[in-house]
This record gives sequence, C-alpha cells and structure tokens, in this order.
Amino acid sequence: MNEQYRIEHDSLGDFQVPKDVYYGVHTARALQNFTITGIPLHHFPELVTSLARVKKACALTNFESKLLTDIQANAIIEACDDIIDGEYHDQFVVDMMQGGAGTSTNMNANEVIANLALEKMGFQKGDYTHLHPNDHVNCSQSTNDVYPTSARIAVLSICKELTDQQLELSAAFKERAEEFTSILKVGRTQLQDAVPITLGSEFAAYAVTIEEDVERVIQLSQLLKEINLGGTAIGTCINTPPHFSYKAVRHLSDLVGYELIPAANLIEASSDMGAFVTFSGTLRRISVKLSKICNDLRLLSSGPCAGFGEISLPAVQAGSSIMPGKINPVIPEVVNQVAYQVIGHDLTVTMAAEAGQLQLNVMEPVIILNVLQSVRMLVNAMHALATKCVNGITANEGRCTELLHQSSVMATALVPIIGYEKAADIAKLSLKERIPVAEAAVRLGIMTKEEVYEAFSTCHLA
Amino acid sequence: MNEQYRIEHDSLGDFQVPKDVYYGVHTARALQNFTITGIPLHHFPELVTSLARVKKACALTNFESKLLTDIQANAIIEACDDIIDGEYHDQFVVDMMQGGAGTSTNMNANEVIANLALEKMGFQKGDYTHLHPNDHVNCSQSTNDVYPTSARIAVLSICKELTDQQLELSAAFKERAEEFTSILKVGRTQLQDAVPITLGSEFAAYAVTIEEDVERVIQLSQLLKEINLGGTAIGTCINTPPHFSYKAVRHLSDLVGYELIPAANLIEASSDMGAFVTFSGTLRRISVKLSKICNDLRLLSSGPCAGFGEISLPAVQAGSSIMPGKINPVIPEVVNQVAYQVIGHDLTVTMAAEAGQLQLNVMEPVIILNVLQSVRMLVNAMHALATKCVNGITANEGRCTELLHQSSVMATALVPIIGYEKAADIAKLSLKERIPVAEAAVRLGIMTKEEVYEAFSTCHLA
Amino acid sequence: MNEQYRIEHDSLGDFQVPKDVYYGVHTARALQNFTITGIPLHHFPELVTSLARVKKACALTNFESKLLTDIQANAIIEACDDIIDGEYHDQFVVDMMQGGAGTSTNMNANEVIANLALEKMGFQKGDYTHLHPNDHVNCSQSTNDVYPTSARIAVLSICKELTDQQLELSAAFKERAEEFTSILKVGRTQLQDAVPITLGSEFAAYAVTIEEDVERVIQLSQLLKEINLGGTAIGTCINTPPHFSYKAVRHLSDLVGYELIPAANLIEASSDMGAFVTFSGTLRRISVKLSKICNDLRLLSSGPCAGFGEISLPAVQAGSSIMPGKINPVIPEVVNQVAYQVIGHDLTVTMAAEAGQLQLNVMEPVIILNVLQSVRMLVNAMHALATKCVNGITANEGRCTELLHQSSVMATALVPIIGYEKAADIAKLSLKERIPVAEAAVRLGIMTKEEVYEAFSTCHLA
Amino acid sequence: MNEQYRIEHDSLGDFQVPKDVYYGVHTARALQNFTITGIPLHHFPELVTSLARVKKACALTNFESKLLTDIQANAIIEACDDIIDGEYHDQFVVDMMQGGAGTSTNMNANEVIANLALEKMGFQKGDYTHLHPNDHVNCSQSTNDVYPTSARIAVLSICKELTDQQLELSAAFKERAEEFTSILKVGRTQLQDAVPITLGSEFAAYAVTIEEDVERVIQLSQLLKEINLGGTAIGTCINTPPHFSYKAVRHLSDLVGYELIPAANLIEASSDMGAFVTFSGTLRRISVKLSKICNDLRLLSSGPCAGFGEISLPAVQAGSSIMPGKINPVIPEVVNQVAYQVIGHDLTVTMAAEAGQLQLNVMEPVIILNVLQSVRMLVNAMHALATKCVNGITANEGRCTELLHQSSVMATALVPIIGYEKAADIAKLSLKERIPVAEAAVRLGIMTKEEVYEAFSTCHLA
Repeated sequence: MNEQYRIEHDSLGDFQVPKDVYYGVHTARALQNFTITGIPLHHFPELVTSLARVKKACALTNFESKLLTDIQANAIIEACDDIIDGEYHDQFVVDMMQGGAGTSTNMNANEVIANLALEKMGFQKGDYTHLHPNDHVNCSQSTNDVYPTSARIAVLSICKELTDQQLELSAAFKERAEEFTSILKVGRTQLQDAVPITLGSEFAAYAVTIEEDVERVIQLSQLLKEINLGGTAIGTCINTPPHFSYKAVRHLSDLVGYELIPAANLIEASSDMGAFVTFSGTLRRISVKLSKICNDLRLLSSGPCAGFGEISLPAVQAGSSIMPGKINPVIPEVVNQVAYQVIGHDLTVTMAAEAGQLQLNVMEPVIILNVLQSVRMLVNAMHALATKCVNGITANEGRCTELLHQSSVMATALVPIIGYEKAADIAKLSLKERIPVAEAAVRLGIMTKEEVYEAFSTCHLA
Repeated sequence: MNEQYRIEHDSLGDFQVPKDVYYGVHTARALQNFTITGIPLHHFPELVTSLARVKKACALTNFESKLLTDIQANAIIEACDDIIDGEYHDQFVVDMMQGGAGTSTNMNANEVIANLALEKMGFQKGDYTHLHPNDHVNCSQSTNDVYPTSARIAVLSICKELTDQQLELSAAFKERAEEFTSILKVGRTQLQDAVPITLGSEFAAYAVTIEEDVERVIQLSQLLKEINLGGTAIGTCINTPPHFSYKAVRHLSDLVGYELIPAANLIEASSDMGAFVTFSGTLRRISVKLSKICNDLRLLSSGPCAGFGEISLPAVQAGSSIMPGKINPVIPEVVNQVAYQVIGHDLTVTMAAEAGQLQLNVMEPVIILNVLQSVRMLVNAMHALATKCVNGITANEGRCTELLHQSSVMATALVPIIGYEKAADIAKLSLKERIPVAEAAVRLGIMTKEEVYEAFSTCHLA
Repeated sequence: MNEQYRIEHDSLGDFQVPKDVYYGVHTARALQNFTITGIPLHHFPELVTSLARVKKACALTNFESKLLTDIQANAIIEACDDIIDGEYHDQFVVDMMQGGAGTSTNMNANEVIANLALEKMGFQKGDYTHLHPNDHVNCSQSTNDVYPTSARIAVLSICKELTDQQLELSAAFKERAEEFTSILKVGRTQLQDAVPITLGSEFAAYAVTIEEDVERVIQLSQLLKEINLGGTAIGTCINTPPHFSYKAVRHLSDLVGYELIPAANLIEASSDMGAFVTFSGTLRRISVKLSKICNDLRLLSSGPCAGFGEISLPAVQAGSSIMPGKINPVIPEVVNQVAYQVIGHDLTVTMAAEAGQLQLNVMEPVIILNVLQSVRMLVNAMHALATKCVNGITANEGRCTELLHQSSVMATALVPIIGYEKAADIAKLSLKERIPVAEAAVRLGIMTKEEVYEAFSTCHLA
Repeated sequence: MNEQYRIEHDSLGDFQVPKDVYYGVHTARALQNFTITGIPLHHFPELVTSLARVKKACALTNFESKLLTDIQANAIIEACDDIIDGEYHDQFVVDMMQGGAGTSTNMNANEVIANLALEKMGFQKGDYTHLHPNDHVNCSQSTNDVYPTSARIAVLSICKELTDQQLELSAAFKERAEEFTSILKVGRTQLQDAVPITLGSEFAAYAVTIEEDVERVIQLSQLLKEINLGGTAIGTCINTPPHFSYKAVRHLSDLVGYELIPAANLIEASSDMGAFVTFSGTLRRISVKLSKICNDLRLLSSGPCAGFGEISLPAVQAGSSIMPGKINPVIPEVVNQVAYQVIGHDLTVTMAAEAGQLQLNVMEPVIILNVLQSVRMLVNAMHALATKCVNGITANEGRCTELLHQSSVMATALVPIIGYEKAADIAKLSLKERIPVAEAAVRLGIMTKEEVYEAFSTCHLA
C-alpha cells in the first residue's frame, strides 16, 4: 500500500503523495482544501501553457543571473517546453477556485516542473535536493507576480479566438445584408411601426455593431500587457537579482510573440485588478449587443403565422416535444443565455476586484476563472450564431412588402410639406379606415395623390 | 453678521450654527462633510417620522426608569409628536448618503428634538445644560440601534402603499381578464405560435402573478419587525437601564400600531442587514415580473399594422416628435425602466450588506436610501401602470381570431389520436401551403374533416 | 463504418446516431447545436434522477388513463427506476446551457427511457413503432411542464444538503462560542475600538446568523413545491386526459416523498420563474452573510504580528511560495470567492427570469444551471469552512486582554453618570497620554478611581 | 380660474396648460404620465444646456437649408442662447425617468424654445402658427437623434469635472506619498504580515491607480463623440435636407468646442447604447478602485488602540452618539457607499442597454439618468476624499516601526542565501518565541547575525 505513495514534506509536516504524479505536497494539500467547483486548472490549457511560459522566462533570466546552473536551467526549460507542447496538463489538478491568491496554482506548476526536470536530470520525483520547486523553479518569483502574469497572457492568448469569432459573425451578417439590400420593410421603434428601412440596412447595422467591438477588444486587452513579473511578493522586487523584472519580461515577450510591458509601478500593479475589470466590461458590452441582436432575430422571425415573420431562421432541430411542426429559434436563445451568464460573471469579477486589500488582491482566482469562462462561452456562442443561424437566414420578402403597404407610417414623409399636425390627421384616418396614406390625404382634401407620391419618392430611405 | 449665528460646541471645538435652525453642531458639520446626492433626510418623511417615534418610545422608557425628569420627558415627547404630525421636517437636512453608519442622522434627530423641547421648556435653542441632545434625547440609545430601527419601521410604514398598489394592479388585470374571457387566440412560446389560449387567461395570469407577491411582501417584511432597539452600540446593551430593550420595544409597538420583536440576539442584529437584503430581493422579484409583463404588453400591442396587434393600449400622449399619428406604449416603457433601476438598487444593497465588518454595518445609509427609493418608485410605477394603461386596454378580437385561423398549431390537438410524427406532417403541409389543418389532414389522407373537428372540440383550451 | 451507427428520423430528416447509445436523433442534433459550456446534464445527477421521477409519475398516470399498455408502462417504469438508481446517467449528454427552453433535455430523457424500455420489451434501440419517445414516454406531457418540474424537484432534493451544511457550520461556530465565552475583548464599530464584548458573543452571533437562514431556505423552497406538471405546452392542459395534472402530481409526490402542489394557475406557472428568483435570492443572502463572516475571520486573525491577532486560524497549507513561515487564511478566502460567484449567478438568474416572454420563459436552462451550481458551491464552501477552519480556530486570550486594557472606550461606561461631554474629555486624555481611563478621570478631577470601577462593574457586557 | 390657463392642442385633443409656463401640451401630458422619481430634467443643467445647443445647431443648419426664415431662425437661436446661459431651466420639468425614449424631453425643449422664440418675435405663448415646436424647432430632427446626442454631450461636458477630481485626488495621494517616503513598515498580503514596504510607496500606488484612469476616461469618452444627429427617426435621415447630418454636426462641434463625429452607420448608432455601457463601465472601474482604497484607509487607520493604527485620518466630526471620544473614518465610508451606488447604477445601465429592440433603445432615459448621477456622485465623493480626508492624513511612524520590528517576515530576505525551507524554520522560531529573525537564525545555527544583517541590507525595499 505504502509503495503507491512517496512522502513529501512542507512546513506543516510529512504528507503522502501518490507515487506516480508529478505534483507534490503543496498541490496535494490544495486538493484536499479546495473541492469547490470541480473545475481543475487543466480545464483551461491556455492557463497551464501560460504558467509554463512564465516559468521558462524566469529560468532563462535566473540562468543569466547565475542563480541556476546550466543543468538546472536546461532541465527546467525542457520541462516547460513539454508543457507548452501540451504534455502533462493532467498534472495541473488544483481547483480553479482556491484561496491563497493562486499560491496553489503556482506551487502546482513549480512542483510539476521540478519533478519533470528532476527526471530529465536523472533523479527521482521528490528528490528536491537537486532541484527544488521553491528555491529553483520559483527562484526570483512569487505567486503574486507569476499568477496574475500567467493569467494575463492566458487571456491574451485566447483574445485572438474571440476577435476571430467577432469577425466571422460580423461577416455573416454582412453577407445577409448584401443579399437583403433591396428588401424594403417597416422600421420599428418602441415596437410600433416606424418609417421604412431595408432589411439589408438592418442586418448591416448588426455587422457594424459587432465589428466595431473588435477594435475595443484589441484596445482594452492592451491593458493586460502591462505585467508585474519581477515584483515578487508585493511589488518591491524582494529576492530578485538586479534588472530581473526587465529581463524576465523581455524573455516572456519573446516566448509569447508580442510586446509585454513591465508595470510602471510594480506595487500598484501587484494589487490592482483594473485591467481585468475593464476587459470583463468589454465582454459584457459584447454580450449586451449579442443579446439585443438575438432578441431582434427572434422577434423578426416570430410566427410563422401570428408574428412578424419577416425572416426565417434555419431549422436546426425539431422544436417541441408536444407541438408537431414547431421550429424554434434555439440558437439565438442559447446566445441570450450566454450573454446573461457573462454579465453575471462580470459582476463576480467586479466584486472580487473591489475586495482587494492592501498589497494584494486575494480574490484573483475567481476573477481569472470567470474571465476565462466568459471568453470561451462567447467564442462558442458567436460561432454557433454565425454558422448555425445567421448563415442560413432567409428573407420573407412578400411579408415585408405586405406589412409596409398596410402601414400608415409613410405619412411621416409628408411632414416637411404639410406640417406635423396635418400629417397626423392623415395618419390617423389611414389607420382608422385601414386605407393607404395617399387615399387618406386625398379624402381629407390636403394633398393630391401625385403630391403624396412625389413626397414619398424624395424622402430618404435606408 | 455674527448675530445670525449661535455658537455650539463639540469635541472638535466651537462651530457657528445658523441662529434659527433647530439642528445643532453635529448636523452642521455633517452638512459640510456630506454633499453627495443632494437628497436630504426629509425627502423621506416616513424616515423622519420613524426617527421621532423611536425617540418618543425611548423617552417614555427613560422616564419610567427615572433617567429623565417629568419636564424633560414631556418636552421631548411633545417635540416628537410635532414631528410625527409632519412639522419641522425641513430641519432634517443631512444627506441620506453619509458616512458614520447614520450617526449624523441620529444626531440630526437628537438636536432638532432637543432644541424644540428646549423652546417648549422656555429655554433658548442651544441651551443644552437643561436638555442635552446626547445625554437626554439620546439617553440609553446609540445610533447603532436607533438608526436601523427607524429605517425598519420606515420601510414597514410604506409597505402598505406597496401592497395596495400590487392589489390595485392585480385588480386591473383581473377586470380585463373577465372582459376578455371569450377571446380565443394563438398562444406563443419562444415567440413562435403555440396552442390556443384565451386573452382572458393571459391577463388572469398577470393578475395572479402580481397578487401572489402581496403575500411575499407581507411574509418577508415580517423580518423587518425584529429590531435591535436597546442593544445600543454593539448589542451588549451598554448604558441602558434594566429591561430597557423590552420596554422600549413595547412602547414603540404601541406607537406604530403593530407588534415589533426585540431581536433574540442583539449582537447579531446590530450588524446584520439580512432582512434588508431579503426585502430588497422581494422588490427585485416584483420588478422582474413587472418588467416581463410590460414586455408582453408592448409585444401584444405592437403594430398598429406590422406587429402582433392583439390588444391596444390607451393613448396617453402623442408618440413621436417626427412621426405623426404614432402612439407609443410609454407607460409600460417607464415601468420597465423602474424595474431596471430597482434591480440596480438591489445590487447596491447587496454589496453594502456584504461590506459590514465586525460589530456593525457602516454602509447602512446607502442600504436604506436604496430600499426606500425602490419602494417609492415601484409604488409610482404600479399606480401608473394600473390607472394609465391596464384600465384602458382594449382587445382587437378580430385580429386575434384571424391569426388563430391562419395558424397550423392546432395540429397539436391531433397528436393523441394519430401520433406526433403524422401530426407533424399535417402541420408542415398546412404551413407550407397556408391551408387549414383540417384540409391538410384530408389531403394527406390521414383523417377526415369530421375526425379533425372532433379532436379540436375535445382538446383542452384555456 | 456504417455499422457503428443506426439511422433515426425526425422532421428535419434522417440522422446517424451512434449504434450503442440510448439517446436518439433529437439528442444527437442537440449535441451538435449546443457546444457552449461543456457541462452535460449528467454533471447534475439530481437533475437526471428528477427527470426520471417525473417520467415515471407520468407513465403511472398514463397507464391509469389507458394511454399506455401494461407492457409499455412497465417497461418505461423499469427504465426510469434504473436511472433513479443511478444507472445510465452517462447517456444524459446534452449541454446544460441550451436553447429551446429545455426541449433537448426532455427529449434526451424521452429517448434514453424509450430505448431502455425497448430493450426491456425485447426490441432493438430505435425501433420506435413499439414505443415512441414522444407518443409514449412523453405522453400527456410537454417540455414546458416536465422540464421546470424536474428542475424544481432537483433543487429541492439538494436543499437538504444545503441546510445540513448550514447547521454544521452554525454548530461549529456555537462550539467555538462556548469555548470563548469568558474572553473579554474590544468590540469594533467602523473598524474603530468600541465598547467591550466577549469573543464568545462574537462567535455566537455568527452561529445565529447562519442558523436563522435554515428557516429561510425551508420557507422559500416551499415555493418550488408548486409545480405545473400536467399543464403541458402553455398551461392549458392540451393533450392530457381528465385530471391528469392532479393524478401525476400525486404520483410524483409519492415518488419524492413530500407533498407537491399543482399550481393554482397553470398558465401563470408555465412562464413564471419567480420561485427560482426568490430561491436564488436566498442563496445570495446566505452568501452575503458568509462573506461578511469570512471577512471578519480574516480580520480578527490578521497578523501574526502587525494585525488584530485575536484569533488564530488552523494552518491547512503553507502560505506563500516566497515568504517562508507565512500562513494564510485560505479557507475563508475561497468562501469569499464562492460568495461572489453565487451573487454573480444570482444576477444571471434575475436577467434570465426577466427575459421570459408571453406563455414561456425560454431562458430556463441558464436559470437551472446557475441555481444548481450555486447550491453545490455553497454546500462545498460551508463544509470546508466548518471542518477545515472554524473547528480549529483558537483564541489568543492574552492579546484580547492586552488590547482591551490599552483602550479608552471604557469611558463609555461613565456617560450615564457624568454625561457625554465630560466622558469625552476623559476618553481624549486617556488616548492622548495612553493612560487608563480611570487615571484620566482622576487627573481631570471628574471622578475617583472607585467611582470609575463601580461604573465599570455595573455596565452591561456581552 | 380659466384665465390661469391657456388651451393647447395635440393629436389627443385639447389640454389646459398653465398660462405662464413656457412648456406646452406635450410637456403637460408628460407631467401627468410620469411621476416616478421626482427628479426633473433641470436637476441636470448640463443636459438642459446640451439640448439647447443641439437645437441651436439644427436651427443654424435649417436656416442654411432655407427651412426656417431669418426671423424664425434668429428667434430660436436667441431662445437657445438664453437657455445655454442658464436661464429658464426651471421650465424643463419632465421627470428624468420617462417612457417614450425621451420624446417628452425633446418636446419639453421644443416647446420651451418655441414659446420663448414666439415672445421674442412679438407673439403670445402658444401661438404656434408663427413658430411651431415640431415643424420649426424640431425641423429635420427626431427625438431619436436629438435626445441621445444631447445626452452624449451632456456627459462629455461633465467629464472635465470628473478628470479634474481624479487629478486632485491623485495629487493629494502623491503629496502624502512624498511626505511618507522614509517610513518603513510591514507590507500585508491576505491581511497577513508580508515583506516590508514604505508608507510612501503604499500611497504612491494609490496616486498611480487613480491617475491612470484619467487616461481611461478620456479614451473611452471619445466613443461618446460619435453622434447620430441627422439620422432622425431610425437613422435613415428621413425628413432632412441634403447633408443635414454633416452640417449640423459641424455646427454642434463649434458650439461645444470640440470635434464631434457623425456616426459611420446612423442606423446602428440610433439603437446602440454601447458607448454608454462602456463609459459606465469606466465609472465602475473607478468606483472599484476608490472602494478598495477607502477600505485600505479604514484598515490602516483602525484603532486607535486595538487596530493597525499606522495612519490617522483627520477628524471631521464627532464619531458616536454614545461612545465619547470616538472618531470614525466617515469620509472613506461615504465614498465606499458611492462606489456601491455607482456599481448598482452600472447594472441598471447594462440591463437597459440590453433591452433595446430593433431600430431604437427605448430605455435611454434610465441610462442617461444613471450615468449622469454616477458622474456627479463620483465627483462629489472624490472631492470630499481629497479635501476632507487624504490631505489631512498623518503617519504614526512609531507604530509602523514597532510593528515591523516585531515581525518575522524579514526571514524572506534570507531565502536567496539559505533556501526556502531553512528560512521557514527561522521564521517559525522567531514567531513562536517572539524573538528577532537574526536571533532565531543564530539560535538555529544557520547564520550569524552579521550574515543576516548583510542579507537585509541588500534586499530590495520599496
């Protein structure tokens, strides 16, 4: 029985760790302490990979500062490369939601890398006299700079997926917009018939509103590029060799392939979660727009008989377990729900950011979990919306035309000629008697049919 | 110039107070310190009155315990009665949003009552040797029990208005429901046509959902009746005579006209804002329902030509500055906005409640401001909705019938007889060819017309 | 290759379903449509089990109404029993976050039960002529009554775990309270020294505030017991035999072991999510309290040298990857984060509830996901707090006494005797000169030492 | 009686308007319809002024397009100038919270300007044949472009106050930081003693974190400069002369003194509230930081005896109605509450933004109300924090030094020399025996005193 375990030691005493795992005593204790969400670190490969990149950048810098031997540094770097290549992720087992401001995450990384490196050096797992998780892998580092730095580059690494999906979705709407460019229909404000618009313009507006947030994501994700690596415990750089922060950030920039910036004030940067709040706020903005658009799509496709019925969404599954033939707008519906989820996550991020105290924000784990989940869900939701819904939307042109012809809103076009009050009289008669605006104008003796048509032809339409 | 002021003194030193005002130095300093919202205490007369009631109950108890003389007690009580009768409210000037956990509110009350009482006793304002705001008016009390107690009975005092409006609104819907009882129409799930319902049933559901929350308000407002009066600073009853809490709560119960309960654990009660969180949560629940209903009303009345058009809302103002003849659902729209405001307030209450520390929640003022504002806005919104909208709603019966006849959802009624798959075939044909369900059934050779009508006649309808 | 699949058919056409799975075409399409969170139905066994209970109750009722044969009913019931016993949960594969108001969840259940039952009847999976997912398993039902009903009893089934943990946590605090009953210490309001309290009283207040919410959970979970089973699509009971709702609810009550109530107004009950909003609001209330308590525990244990240091939390892991010997309050920290998560979920629930339209709330899936997750996290968090933290808290009595002796707050006890202003003078001198209150009183010539001690001895303490 | 009124007329019929007021029938009806918050338009002079600026810009453009006569245009412009100069604001009476997407606000402006202009032209109020609120003042406009445009420039006009206060507060922290630059103290992470920092660094971090948001406000307020003026009802520019949008935006830019941009897609711009969501998100970010800082200030000044006591906040009022001599951190406390209020408002803005439908967001009024209130409260709160708190903060240097000397955290400085595990042993002994780190190192035979001091002297400090 004992043989399945090895004994490790920390300041609380001895502890049995499963023999074959690469993590060690700190991770094992964290597994016991945090059984909260059931979502382990490796659920987010981008976070695991980012941890390995940070550890590698630090090892390179420590080697330059002669804090690691050639052999130690190489072993650590090789271990990090394995993880960056996607191996050993199953060893990152701690619950994403944890106390300790991410110490368990950092120690999970330190221990896995140390044991991998030990094996590469020809030693047994746990034989930390040759390479120690704290003294060597974590050398010149603290959880308080490693963890938020890793989280920042993890988020940045999936930003590309996010903007790709924004562009895909925007393109899908643009394609529909071009197809629907000549379909004139009733506009609607306050759910009441308003002046005409084309269905193409309506869809072009969706394309624009989605696309303009790509710039927002890029702009505000820049804030995440300012990192506190090298600040160690509280931003005072204790236990780092000279210029460590500068050098480590340079190495890390090389590893991620874009420019990272050492925070101008490392103390401020150690406790401030402002960049995450702002980024989460951008995800919220995207969600608000997506939800509004999905509400519109559901409204415009309402029916098939007793609704607006101006467009049809593609059927992706049977609609009802009891009502045969029913087709429901299931894709927009799930996107609405993702939007509400992201907005809820955003509140969690906000409260957690407010709860920082003095030199650290201990609530970082819940912030990181929620931001990563939100990005993922938005990526999935936008992809589904583009590919399973927008791409297949068809216009019901006859219905659009029919509704427009019934409507009295065209009286608006007469205002510049006859004034608001007379135009209102025409609109009211048209509506009451259900007759065309032109006929109402004639019947009231205000304009001739020709004058009305002239007014129509010169008024702006989308 | 100097003559317009009197000099008062506190532990920070001397301070000029306008000669004619009834408040004193503590209030005057608070006026300087808190210029935040511009909303003074007297904006909420129910809060001012409640403060006076609490002070009166304490004066009665203090007199019984011989901590006040006959003359002092009578003067304080008369001053309180004036305030309860609506006088001198303009002397309650401190900003509702304040630091100090309500100390400035309590001292504003202590000072106004002291100076009013001094005048009744034949002394000058500020002549506190005869009657002191702290030593006599605040005798056996602390802000930390007086302020939350006053807030609780202030909220309770306007609960009646809230439930009255809930009942008024529910009754308005019920009346419409009875009027619309025979109007059959298409039901809608997921904005898609579903099985039939009557317009009456639809409105009856609104009546029910509003009315059932009356019970919720009454049930959960009970939690506010548990008060910490007599607990003084932190719930340990320091500086109170024996049985003060019990006696003062009895007097206060008499004054408000319903039974209040001394908290079982005064220490817990001193810092816990749970009852406000729960009550605010109930306001949120009401808001969620109101918003859903208003969304429905706007949807059902969408049109006049290019929408659902099943009901018409009464016109209460011209709809558009540019589109003549347009009538908009402005009352439901403002109710939606009130709902969002209450939900926002509820978040503020939640965060403030979470921020309590150790023996006190210092964020009480923002909690109380938000709860009182939410109740008021809901009262106003529900009254407007009942009187300016629901009461005047008319049904467009022809439209309801027309839409129902066009619909293929009646195929659902055939499922128990021919099964889901065959019914789906009928529904699809009906929709595709825009022919009645019965005709589609015959054309597919699945049922005779008579069998279809038989199925229709026996299926449940609302 | 083909052999690994069977062909199923729905109104969209033919579809390949893996040969060995018990789910069918509707589930398979849903798997394609909803790849959002990666959390499948079987992540919540309480929901899977509840679906099976509802299906069993309906089968019993349908058999009584002669809508199922003996053989069909028995096969369905046996299949449900298998699932209730925990088998075949891996066949419930649809993403918890889905469009369609839960149709995919209901169809996943219908299909798994149908295929299990077919095998029991001696037929092949997919041979639906003998037993059809819609016509037989879903007989007299709709997603719109089955899904919310199942969700309600799923939540109710884990309420017991929730209240158990509340009681466990409350008991842990009570035990500490008894242990600490004689330790007198400085109270604190607004983080400033206030009148004395015992550490026991402080912990007793935590016990009380946690315990009183047990009643709240029980009280408000009652609202979940009102179910709309039998209302089918929109609450009009279309396609159900006489008294189906009444009978099915009776059977279901027997199966769950407590009394369920058919909603008084089935139409209202079909679209209203009020009970979930209220229940989620209760989870929020619990979270607010837990977060406040954890903030307090972290504050009271701050130090070890430069903080309050009145209590020590048990060490459950090493505190820092860089600062040796540091022990951090990791358990309270993770509970804080759970609280923020639950409050975020609660916002998601609120927004989703508001988004209901007309006869249905299509956002039910996100509501159910968030409520179930919140309950789970609270259960885990409270268990960790009780067993890994509160149970091991020790008092630093010396520190408590030392701080109390240094404090000038005892001057409060003199107010009833010498008045507020003179007591303030004593307090100020005591603080300025860092001398005991009694000495300051003497030095100012206001009271003798004996008088001061007499006042202390008679003042209330917790 | 009648003489006190004049009769005006709209599409709903005749209506009595008080004789002396400048507003007309639309405003009067709105007063009846919306009695919700009691906050009239003129509560926000920046909004009233902005409306007048927009109306003036349009009048200039309309005159150029020959849609107004010389006399009409001049009269309108003079009326607008009066309002811009602060006159007649009391005529802007409609409740800020209103249905109709701001139509009542726009009509209130149209009517006041029309009647003012009529008087300037020598006519009576209400004599609209000479100058009509809709046909002339609102010429080429719609509520749907005028209202959000006015709101945007209203917010922009108070942004300067916001950034001024951010800079004032940041400067106040910077001044303290310089004063405290040599005061070494214990840092704290997770409320546990951590490695040293200077009080100056701590305050410098506050200065930095506040100041960096100035850039954020400026950057994100740019989004508000993209306006939809000229888009009229739904962004299709119906009823505008050629190039109206371009010209009107130019005039408006001149009037406000900075460059405004016509939205690239006017249809998208008519319904999208994204810029308000983002701006509100920035206010939230500021609030989160302010709240964190105020929590810190309250913590660092906790005491006077039984807390951290490292700094003292200036006393601005007596602290307690019962505890003499108590001084409370009332200014940070009120700032915390403002933060929670702004975060609540931000949620309201988010929900309202999500509720836009099709060509318009009808919830604009609640968005505008909440954003304006949030800016105001933040301005007030930051000013109070800078002038009544931060400016007067003093350091308790002796206390800082004393706590640092007691602490075992300096063992961290030994890690690079002796490794993590041995340093942990030293820290544990130091803490257990309450002896200095150097002594513990010697006693364990790990280092000499000289080696320890050497390590201390070379480690990084803030």
